[in-house]
Parts: sequence; C-alpha cells; structure tokens
Amino acid sequence: MSEAHDAVEVIIAKRDKHELSDSQIDWVVDAYTRGAVDPEQMSALAMAILLNGMNRREISRWTNAMIASGERMDFSSLSRPTSDKHSTGGVGDKITLPLAPLVAACGVAVPQLSGRGLGHTGGTLDKLESIPGWRANLSNEEMMAQLENVGAVICAAGTGLAPADKKLYALRDITGTVEAIPLIASSIMSKKIAEGTGSLVLDVKVGTGAFMKDLDQARELAQTMVALGTDAGVHTVALLTDMSTPLGNTAGNAIEVQESVDVLAGGGPADVVELTLALAREMLAGAGRSDIDPADVLASGKAMDTWKAMIRAQDGDPDAPLPQAKHSHVVTAPSSGVLTRLDAMAVGLAAWRLGAGRARAEDPVQAGAGVIWHARPGDSVTEGSPLFTLLTDDAGRFDRALESLEGGFDIEPAGSSFTPRALVLDRIE
Amino acid sequence: MSEAHDAVEVIIAKRDKHELSDSQIDWVVDAYTRGAVDPEQMSALAMAILLNGMNRREISRWTNAMIASGERMDFSSLSRPTSDKHSTGGVGDKITLPLAPLVAACGVAVPQLSGRGLGHTGGTLDKLESIPGWRANLSNEEMMAQLENVGAVICAAGTGLAPADKKLYALRDITGTVEAIPLIASSIMSKKIAEGTGSLVLDVKVGTGAFMKDLDQARELAQTMVALGTDAGVHTVALLTDMSTPLGNTAGNAIEVQESVDVLAGGGPADVVELTLALAREMLAGAGRSDIDPADVLASGKAMDTWKAMIRAQDGDPDAPLPQAKHSHVVTAPSSGVLTRLDAMAVGLAAWRLGAGRARAEDPVQAGAGVIWHARPGDSVTEGSPLFTLLTDDAGRFDRALESLEGGFDIEPAGSSFTPRALVLDRIE
Repeated sequence: MSEAHDAVEVIIAKRDKHELSDSQIDWVVDAYTRGAVDPEQMSALAMAILLNGMNRREISRWTNAMIASGERMDFSSLSRPTSDKHSTGGVGDKITLPLAPLVAACGVAVPQLSGRGLGHTGGTLDKLESIPGWRANLSNEEMMAQLENVGAVICAAGTGLAPADKKLYALRDITGTVEAIPLIASSIMSKKIAEGTGSLVLDVKVGTGAFMKDLDQARELAQTMVALGTDAGVHTVALLTDMSTPLGNTAGNAIEVQESVDVLAGGGPADVVELTLALAREMLAGAGRSDIDPADVLASGKAMDTWKAMIRAQDGDPDAPLPQAKHSHVVTAPSSGVLTRLDAMAVGLAAWRLGAGRARAEDPVQAGAGVIWHARPGDSVTEGSPLFTLLTDDAGRFDRALESLEGGFDIEPAGSSFTPRALVLDRIE
Repeated sequence: MSEAHDAVEVIIAKRDKHELSDSQIDWVVDAYTRGAVDPEQMSALAMAILLNGMNRREISRWTNAMIASGERMDFSSLSRPTSDKHSTGGVGDKITLPLAPLVAACGVAVPQLSGRGLGHTGGTLDKLESIPGWRANLSNEEMMAQLENVGAVICAAGTGLAPADKKLYALRDITGTVEAIPLIASSIMSKKIAEGTGSLVLDVKVGTGAFMKDLDQARELAQTMVALGTDAGVHTVALLTDMSTPLGNTAGNAIEVQESVDVLAGGGPADVVELTLALAREMLAGAGRSDIDPADVLASGKAMDTWKAMIRAQDGDPDAPLPQAKHSHVVTAPSSGVLTRLDAMAVGLAAWRLGAGRARAEDPVQAGAGVIWHARPGDSVTEGSPLFTLLTDDAGRFDRALESLEGGFDIEPAGSSFTPRALVLDRIE
C-alpha cells in the first residue's frame, strides 16, 4: 500500500517541476478515484502535468495506478494469441471494422473494446450500431466465448476497466487539460493493458482531422505509448498515419459500415484497403504470425465470413439493409480541374453537424447521417458534377454542414502539380 | 457587460501562454463568482496563471473584475484624508496596532480592514480580541462614525468586499495555487481598492518568516501591487522589510498588544518603533501630510490617547488587565556568547503550536499564548540565562513548540563578528 500523502504536497511538487515519487502517484490516483482528492485538486495537478510534463517512470507508474483502480481481463486461456489495435481517432476511420475480422480470419484473436464518438471523429460502436439488431454490450463470458468461437469481438468497454481513467477523462474534458501527452498516453494504455491483449498496434493519426496536428507531437505520443506497452509486457508498435485527408470516401455511421463491407468483399477505397492491410500485418507480426499475408486472406473471402459471424454473434443481421438518411443534398464542383486538397476536419465537422456524431456523451446519433465525397485529392473533377453528398434525417442541419465545408477543399486547374501524401508516415517500435 | 465566453476556452488561452482579453477576464471572474464556472475549472486556470503568468494589463483587469464582484466603500465624505497600510504578514508583526492610532493622531484617517491569522503569521484581529470587550465587527455606519470621531478603525472586512476574492482564495489554498504573484497581488489590492482608501502603504515582508523568501520575488510582488494601486488612482508605495528575524520581542496575541502599548507609551523594542515610524511617514506622505513628524506625535502621548479612544469605540477596555497564559516554560541559553541568528519561521511556528494561531479558519486562538524572546540578534547571552519564555493554556503543547525552536537560533563566541540586517530593504513607488 502507498503511504499517506497530501493533495497539495503532490500538486506543489509537480507545479515546481519535481518528479513525483511512485508513492505520490499511487496515492493521488487511488485517492482521487475514491473521492479523497477533490476534483479541483486533480484539475490543478492535471494542468501542472500538462505544463511541466512527466518522465517515462512517472507516466508508467501513473498508468499502472490507473490499471490498479479497476479489474483486469485475461485472455491467456484462449487457444490462439491475441492482438488489438487502437486509433487515436480520425475522420472516416472505419478501419477497425474490416481489420478485426481480417486478423481473426488469419488465426489471431482480436478483443476490441471500443468507445463511442465525441466531437468530429466517429465512434466504432456508433457505426456498428447502425446494423439492425447489433448490440455493443457483452458480458465478459460472452466476450470470451466469441473470441474463442469467432475470433473477433468489437464491443463496449465494461465500466470495471480503469475507473480512474473514466473519472479523470471527464474532468480533463471540462478543464482544458485533455492535450497533455502523459495523460493521453496513460489514458489509452491503461485501458489497453487492463484489457489484457497480448500485443497491440497503435494507429496515431497526424493532421488537421486528428488530435495531433503536428508530426513531432504525434511521434512523442507514439513513443510514450510504445514505451508504456513495452514496460507492461505488451508487444506494442505504433504507425503514424496521415489524417490531413479523411479516410475512404465516407464519414458517418451506416455509410462507413457499407464501405467496410465493400473492403471485405474485395473492393472499397484504395486507402482503406492499404491501411487495413498495413495494420493487419503489424497485428499478425505482434502475435508471432508474420508468416501469414492478410492480403491473401482478404482475397479468399474468409474475412467476410468472419465479419458475418462476428455481427451475428452480437445479434446483428449482416445481410439486412442498412438505414438510410431521409434527406440528401448534393454539392457540385464549382470549377473543373484537379482536387488538390480535401480537409479532414472540414469533412468531420460537416458529418458531425449532419447528425453522425454527438456534442455530449448522452446525445443520440443518426445512423444514416454523414458525408460522401465523390473525389479524393489527385482526382479530376468537372464543374457542376457532384463533389459531396450530404445525408441527414433533419434537413435543418444542411446549412451549418455546408458552412463547415467552406474552404475545406481546393480545386486547381488541370495539369497542376499534385504530390500525394504518404498514408503511413512513420513506424515506432 | 462582458460577452459570453466558455471556461475551457479561457483556460486553454492561458495554458497556451496567450494574453487573456478584458472580456475573457471579466467573464471568468464574474461567472466563477456566480457559480457558472466550476471550481475545478477555476483551479486549472489558477495553475495556468501561476505557471504562465499575467501581464500588467491582465492583472489590473483581473483585480477590477474582483472589485466589481462586490460593494465598494467611499470615504470621500470624511473631513480628513485617508491612508491605509497592508502587510503581507510576518512573525511578531504587531505594527498596525501602534501605527493606526499614531497616523490618526497626526490628522490622517486610517480605515484598517484586517483579517485573522492562518498558519504561523498572526492576525491583527486575533491580537486585538485579547483586549476585554473589544469587538471586530462593525457596521459601515459605525466605521464611518469612528473614522470621523476617532480617526482610526481596525475592524473585520465585511463579506461584501470582493466576494470573488474570498471564494478564489479558499480554492487556491487547497489546490497549490497560493503562490502566484498575479493572484496574490490582485487578492490584496482588490480588497484595498474596494475599501476606498485614498492612499496605501504596502509592507512587503522578505525572509524565512515571510511568504516571500527571496528579495527578487518580493520586489516583483511589490512592483505589481504598486502598479495596480496606481492604475486604480490610489497613491501606493511599498517598503520591502526584513522578516528573517521576528519583529520586537513577542509573538502572540495579548503579549503583542502589550508590546504595542509600550511603543505608544514611548518605549518598546527599537525595531518596532523604527518600522512604525517609517510606515507612518509613508502614510502621511501619501495623504499629503509629510509636514508632520510622527516621532513628535508619538512622544507627545497623543497617539496613546487615540489608541484608547479607538479601543473604547469598539467596546474594549484599554486599561483592563490583558489575559495571561496558564502555563509558562523558560528556555535558557545553552552557551554564552552573541546571539547571531533568530529565525522568524522557528519562532512563528512555536507561537502557533502554543495556541496563538490556528490551523483552520474556524479554530479558536488562545489570547495568552505565544513566545517571548529575551535577546535579539547582536545581543550578548549568558549560558543558563533565559532565552525564550513559552506561554500556553495547554501544557501539552510545549513539546512541539520546543521542537520548532530547535536549530532556530545561533549563539557564537563573544567577539564574533555580527552584521545586523537592515530593517527596510527597499522602497518601491
């Protein structure tokens, strides 16, 4: 057990740029979780951490203290290795949907505990909930059985994992302390380590539509998380991937499920296929199965079979028609030429404002709402031809969504030079 | 009126080292006072202010916003000018007691709104409350009448002055954000400006027994406060004065009243007389009466007459015997030689632990408790002769008080060189 400390002593230590001791960290995380440290004290500490930082030992200890605040899962009884993926969140980022069944079809179990969306980035559970009948909440027993029988599960994280993180995250959200790399890294990694995955691949997004706008910051976050995973005995690799342009051709819920099914069927947008395969290779390598090429398994149709089994196991009907929005509005290209820029944040905000995302955790989302873009950077466009289709159940939302798209793309004269940005920007191990 | 802002926006602006706009400051102080900004949000902002600072415009606006949160007093109807003094707090700092009646006896009204002690520094009201019958709480009408008739009043600040400061001070106390110079300066000056004094002298203490241990920090605080006073149209001067050694020969409540009465009677410790006269000269100059020499008025006995009138006006009996502690304990000099150091913090802690001060705002204090020191730095002492007398109503308190004094003084062989530290270290105008 940790010795007794005083909240003001811990705050002042970090305020004055000292390292927090193991005992101080254990005490303050535990005392905050059980209410002995006040929210106003934790928010002052969070601001001091944001401004003065924490070193690797402190972040590692903080992460372990958050893990210790709740239960841990254990997949060691499964007959196959486990691997998981976490994305820091982007626009049109439906990669988990084709990725989890693909990796499972390769023989590695994928226990994906996911969240719902907040703000302009979509949530994996929101997307899957557009499938008729599908349910996000599973008991631990159901989860274990599905992992053994199907090999992949995407479900809501139980409330028992890292409750300290849940409480702290809600506090950071209202106190301007979300953007602290030590707190972001420990928040993500405490949940993933408590989840008990054997290996982990991190997709750290960089660009206008991502949390990290800057490559150096994203690299620092990735290095911090890889170190945390490694310290906890979880084989962890991070890819830094571009999020200046949205992924695929859709941002929404049902429309992203459809795009994912297209990928599983052997089609779909090239960038979604590319990133799905890149992450699948990392997950397989982390689980010791780099002998398998996921492209072959995708082409074989086995990943689609696993997808259907995964959806059915959670009471969803993978063959039922997906919900459609009541209203649509087409934005046409204002000129002819080459689309040289499509801003991820602009598209993400538009989809959010159309009803695909939520402003508060308790808000509902529209299954059919979202944005389809008919061209990607590098594509030629013709004046008057469709550039975006906006979808919503509430036609009153079009105006603000259209505002978000203003200035969100550039069309330059045909023949203009265009250099596509690489999708995978760096790899951290 | 200020436009609407969002707490997170204001926090993030200061977190990211931006200047806060006038409108942001007005909004956040007002919204915090009325509960629309949560305590956890204000504590994150206070930490960001502590670590990233505020410029002169921001501090001035913040001070004005705190003043605007409550009522303002107005002494312009008095027949004489007003001048006030504020000390940042020290050990044995009873200067207000002889100073207020002395300046009043010189023809300048002194409206002293004081506080109670917290921690190792004593509170002026606690000291005066050791006088039988004396009461600290006056109505505004009583205060005005006493200022007109007697010329001096020392009383509790009403709850109507700068309520934002009261709320913020309590929050800073539990969140490790007390030591922010912009917040210390605006806290002190918002109350003094709202009080409505025409001129103000600040006694900024420096040394082990003071809040500011370091001369540069104290100078920064003094400059900030002088600028705030000047911006608000209050003639403001600051003296930086030594608090490495306690003032006078006593730290407590009744024993400090007795020492103050000794000064008013023409005696008392030389340092208390020196600082009282130095501050009186500044207060008189600030009120345009530098023609008067307060030393003459002190010698004339008029200051003592004003003291008695001031105490009687608040229902106290200036001639009644003062309370005495039930128990005393004498500490003798362990060797013969010269006392070369007497640490203010050690003495202050001892007096506090004997019962002269309080740990929490709601604790009572003992009127008779405290410490008398029988030698000051530079004095010769003889082994076995009394060095300290400790006073308390609760003999169980002696042990911890004695612990505080350990290492709190040095006696060096007779003939050792000793350089006395100046009492007034600097003057900021």
